Amino acid sequence: MTLGFAILGAGRIGQAHARAISATPGARFVALSEPLQAAADDMKARYGCDLRDIDQIADSPDVQAVAICTPTDTHADLIEQFAKAGKAIFCEKPVDLSADRVRQALATVEQTGARLMVGFNRRFDPDFMSVKAAIDDGQVGDVEMVVITSRDPGPPPYGYIEVSGGIFRDMTIHDFDIARWLLGEEVQTVMAQGSVLVDPKIGELGDYDSVNVILRTATGKQAVITNSRRATYGYDQRIEVHGSRGMAAAQNRHESTVEVAGAGGYTRPPLLNFFMDRYAQAYANEIAAFVAALNDGGPLPTTGSDGLKALELADAALDSAQTGKAVVLT
Amino acid sequence: MTLGFAILGAGRIGQAHARAISATPGARFVALSEPLQAAADDMKARYGCDLRDIDQIADSPDVQAVAICTPTDTHADLIEQFAKAGKAIFCEKPVDLSADRVRQALATVEQTGARLMVGFNRRFDPDFMSVKAAIDDGQVGDVEMVVITSRDPGPPPYGYIEVSGGIFRDMTIHDFDIARWLLGEEVQTVMAQGSVLVDPKIGELGDYDSVNVILRTATGKQAVITNSRRATYGYDQRIEVHGSRGMAAAQNRHESTVEVAGAGGYTRPPLLNFFMDRYAQAYANEIAAFVAALNDGGPLPTTGSDGLKALELADAALDSAQTGKAVVLT
Amino acid sequence: MTLGFAILGAGRIGQAHARAISATPGARFVALSEPLQAAADDMKARYGCDLRDIDQIADSPDVQAVAICTPTDTHADLIEQFAKAGKAIFCEKPVDLSADRVRQALATVEQTGARLMVGFNRRFDPDFMSVKAAIDDGQVGDVEMVVITSRDPGPPPYGYIEVSGGIFRDMTIHDFDIARWLLGEEVQTVMAQGSVLVDPKIGELGDYDSVNVILRTATGKQAVITNSRRATYGYDQRIEVHGSRGMAAAQNRHESTVEVAGAGGYTRPPLLNFFMDRYAQAYANEIAAFVAALNDGGPLPTTGSDGLKALELADAALDSAQTGKAVVLT
Amino acid sequence: MTLGFAILGAGRIGQAHARAISATPGARFVALSEPLQAAADDMKARYGCDLRDIDQIADSPDVQAVAICTPTDTHADLIEQFAKAGKAIFCEKPVDLSADRVRQALATVEQTGARLMVGFNRRFDPDFMSVKAAIDDGQVGDVEMVVITSRDPGPPPYGYIEVSGGIFRDMTIHDFDIARWLLGEEVQTVMAQGSVLVDPKIGELGDYDSVNVILRTATGKQAVITNSRRATYGYDQRIEVHGSRGMAAAQNRHESTVEVAGAGGYTRPPLLNFFMDRYAQAYANEIAAFVAALNDGGPLPTTGSDGLKALELADAALDSAQTGKAVVLT
Repeated sequence: MTLGFAILGAGRIGQAHARAISATPGARFVALSEPLQAAADDMKARYGCDLRDIDQIADSPDVQAVAICTPTDTHADLIEQFAKAGKAIFCEKPVDLSADRVRQALATVEQTGARLMVGFNRRFDPDFMSVKAAIDDGQVGDVEMVVITSRDPGPPPYGYIEVSGGIFRDMTIHDFDIARWLLGEEVQTVMAQGSVLVDPKIGELGDYDSVNVILRTATGKQAVITNSRRATYGYDQRIEVHGSRGMAAAQNRHESTVEVAGAGGYTRPPLLNFFMDRYAQAYANEIAAFVAALNDGGPLPTTGSDGLKALELADAALDSAQTGKAVVLT
Repeated sequence: MTLGFAILGAGRIGQAHARAISATPGARFVALSEPLQAAADDMKARYGCDLRDIDQIADSPDVQAVAICTPTDTHADLIEQFAKAGKAIFCEKPVDLSADRVRQALATVEQTGARLMVGFNRRFDPDFMSVKAAIDDGQVGDVEMVVITSRDPGPPPYGYIEVSGGIFRDMTIHDFDIARWLLGEEVQTVMAQGSVLVDPKIGELGDYDSVNVILRTATGKQAVITNSRRATYGYDQRIEVHGSRGMAAAQNRHESTVEVAGAGGYTRPPLLNFFMDRYAQAYANEIAAFVAALNDGGPLPTTGSDGLKALELADAALDSAQTGKAVVLT
Repeated sequence: MTLGFAILGAGRIGQAHARAISATPGARFVALSEPLQAAADDMKARYGCDLRDIDQIADSPDVQAVAICTPTDTHADLIEQFAKAGKAIFCEKPVDLSADRVRQALATVEQTGARLMVGFNRRFDPDFMSVKAAIDDGQVGDVEMVVITSRDPGPPPYGYIEVSGGIFRDMTIHDFDIARWLLGEEVQTVMAQGSVLVDPKIGELGDYDSVNVILRTATGKQAVITNSRRATYGYDQRIEVHGSRGMAAAQNRHESTVEVAGAGGYTRPPLLNFFMDRYAQAYANEIAAFVAALNDGGPLPTTGSDGLKALELADAALDSAQTGKAVVLT
Repeated sequence: MTLGFAILGAGRIGQAHARAISATPGARFVALSEPLQAAADDMKARYGCDLRDIDQIADSPDVQAVAICTPTDTHADLIEQFAKAGKAIFCEKPVDLSADRVRQALATVEQTGARLMVGFNRRFDPDFMSVKAAIDDGQVGDVEMVVITSRDPGPPPYGYIEVSGGIFRDMTIHDFDIARWLLGEEVQTVMAQGSVLVDPKIGELGDYDSVNVILRTATGKQAVITNSRRATYGYDQRIEVHGSRGMAAAQNRHESTVEVAGAGGYTRPPLLNFFMDRYAQAYANEIAAFVAALNDGGPLPTTGSDGLKALELADAALDSAQTGKAVVLT
């Protein structure tokens, strides 16, 4: 059977999902909801999808799954609406900036028996999947430490910072999810430090731009996360996992493999700069995984619970950075 | 204006070009000619193209360009037919295994004023384009030596070897083209050595499986090409250009960036193994370049003359390997 | 003038310093104090040094400098004795495990006007010196974050753990010194987490074997230190410094540069495994730096104060790991 | 027993061997012959060696081995003199620029039963030894191709070029030796191309500055050697060996492991620039191997015959470059 998809929102991520759905066997991009007429028309021209409003989509029998790519503050409402409408739901992270609101929405998901996948795209990056595979194959042995480096080329617009919930909830949340995934255990203790080093205006907005976090599980496994809103050399995305037998490390992706050597040394190009380029394959893979799980009835690889837990870690990290105390999760 | 495309042949390369044409703004995949009904139907289902025979395509007013993806021994005839029909032509290399036949076909192209691009896909590989850009930017200085490593993961089927014209005309021909492109001068002298080291049966078929070639231009610039039909670690494709100011080197592409370290050392995965994966972006780029040149009237990046010159180098290399003498091109 | 040197202790480090002194122009290895007769005789045979006891050395007019390579619990006493004797002093770290005892010894050094260098050998590693030079040259811009990875191939003997003062004072102390050196500011706040993951017996001895530390200066610069007593792939010693203009990173040193590729991938050898091999050049450089500073009267590159501050950070880290609170240094 | 060594010549290489002999257990640097008084005195001051003339050394009962580090045109005479004097001989390459003169000297060596090692230092480089070990361990399988890149940072003085015998006999000769060593078979056919691209004056002196060579054994194994007198990025010394099971590749050594990343990309430092730095360990290892072979009576790792064969390949390459024909060795 071919899965009929609707996409809510034709922004950057909505477009990426449109490409992915069109390229995924077993899926068909049926309908789009997008308030901006020009953007909607462009998507229709490219993919031949119908244009419908959200309520129409909820009522569309030819739509079995929706991809929620709207602003964050609409996610929880839409999850509830489409869970009740009996649709499978793929929702961009975060579900909401309030853990309580997330819990509420997840309760609805549970009551309705809806299937919900949260878009932690990095779990579907081919390099990070190889790291996970090395763990699962036993090449790393028992995992002891995870070290995650995630540095953005530059800070987002101030307007985004004002509504993003802060660096821990907007940026580190990806790393919290990766840490949980690779540690294979829940985090018990969170320690964090935050600084404003890139742009003082970010501090005036009440946020940090440079943070480090130490996570610790009940058995003592640890993860270290380093985040910055500045990386002049491109989008720095690395993972190391250390264990009793060895280490698995995912390196960065450069713009090309070319190295130019001269009297000044050997120079490689900067890293891929834009997250949509860096994670292009990951976006395609996550939709394929969603479709595969729906079509074969298997478990979804990332759930609403994953979204909630990452948010709880973000809240704890903010608390620790503000109080200077380790926060123990209950 | 949107360029209407027909593809002749729905094999591996025909499919790659279908994907590329569909993704290229300003181009539309209008019609396919493919004798195998199942393959033709599948392409029609995916892309909505018409199915027409070759003569119909030659007469189709909605087709402005054709991509010739049929067996090599049909290339020259089809080039002549479509040149006379006034279509722009993208032809997979080689134009023909006989240099005389190539000259004949190119004469027709010239007489008709047709536009012909020959598919030397590697010139459109992002890494090799970066090497060329480093030369053009002056980072390498005056080019002195080009070193090309090209090793296939394994030999092709015997049936292919029997009709391919031999390793120099089938495999090294790509490297001859790259060498000409990067040297920026025509080759004057060719020296080659051939061996049978991978499979004695290849020798029985009259071919080599391991060759080295030295090219030399009139001003003394040199290129070295190393080819083998065996590379257990993947598809080995590297280029170095040395000049008066420095070197530019394109490294290989591995399956992932992950390195696993343990008591036995640090292990990276093998190289991308399949040429369609390794050069996926190159195939897309060459079609985009063809479309761009047609739409803006600019020069085609690779011409029939490039196809002829690479073939002449292949013939010379075979001669040198057989006679043990440097062959001087006239 | 040639500087006459005495070495106190003919163990592993004493021997390294003997090699370094002999190879340093402007220095001469005059006398050794070593209670084990066989070890003393061997050094005499190799280097032609005199064998004298400690008090004799203190009274030797042909000795201008001493290298203290005896067990840690003798360092403070020896520093005081040789400071009073008017000798220049090179002392292995740590000065003492008690910060109070260190302060006391440093007071004597100050009163006597003696010159004291503490052996933080890593500051003299050529790779780490290049990182520092990149900072000093402005290539990194304003330093924002330092990331230090230091993992031992395996844990030390239990007997050493019992007297070492614990992982923070014995192992991390090197990284605290490097962090201070590269941050270019004093640390104000210390957060640490400790686990026992490698060997439960280490926990029974009251120590950790796996720790992570976040340091923060008054202006918000941060350093992250990752330590483990286990690295199956060799002695893992890396540094990254991130700043407003870019990053400087020192990679590991492998046993050789050779990579072997086959069907299983590309394999490089493990890292240099032994700290005396990894830091061979650093040991030579630090003695050369000591000699140079004494001979030209310039400042010593690492002082007793550096030893004290690193120890204070170790004490703070232990406190933080035990209490789960950030420790603010006064 | 301790082997008493005399060194003939206190130049750059003589000094390197003095360091190596002094550091090698089982060897003692007894005497030096050096016509320049200042150089001789300096060596005596450093190592305490006697100063003797060549005939005295030949007669010295406390000298069992000599290291010939004098100008090339004296090597053959000195080999003959010391062979007759019953000394073991370590001679820098080349034995002579004339293959006939080499044969003559080797005849004397054979008649006297003297032990002669020729200083092909690169066989003792730790990285190249690892490549050889990978072959010997079977990791490469049957060797098929050897690819050697050897590029000097800059050309030698004109005076040296005038007497060196030309690039093939002075520079490529090292690579010929390495090729023989790694191929594990004698070379049967030589093809070479030479150009003058770096400095026209080199051409006026009758030499090339940029050459490529293809070697072929009777079974078809091939080696490719690329040489240039120019490498702006340092002393470029790489080896690849390809075989039926895989590849072993020795990479270059950079000045440090540090990479600096910024908006312009990632920059590593140039390569070690000076052959004495690049091959420092190789020089030490070859003396240790010579001493070990003499002390345990085992075979010498490089013999006069190796010196002769490398010279014959150099002569053949020059012939091929001049005639444009493959030269078959008899």
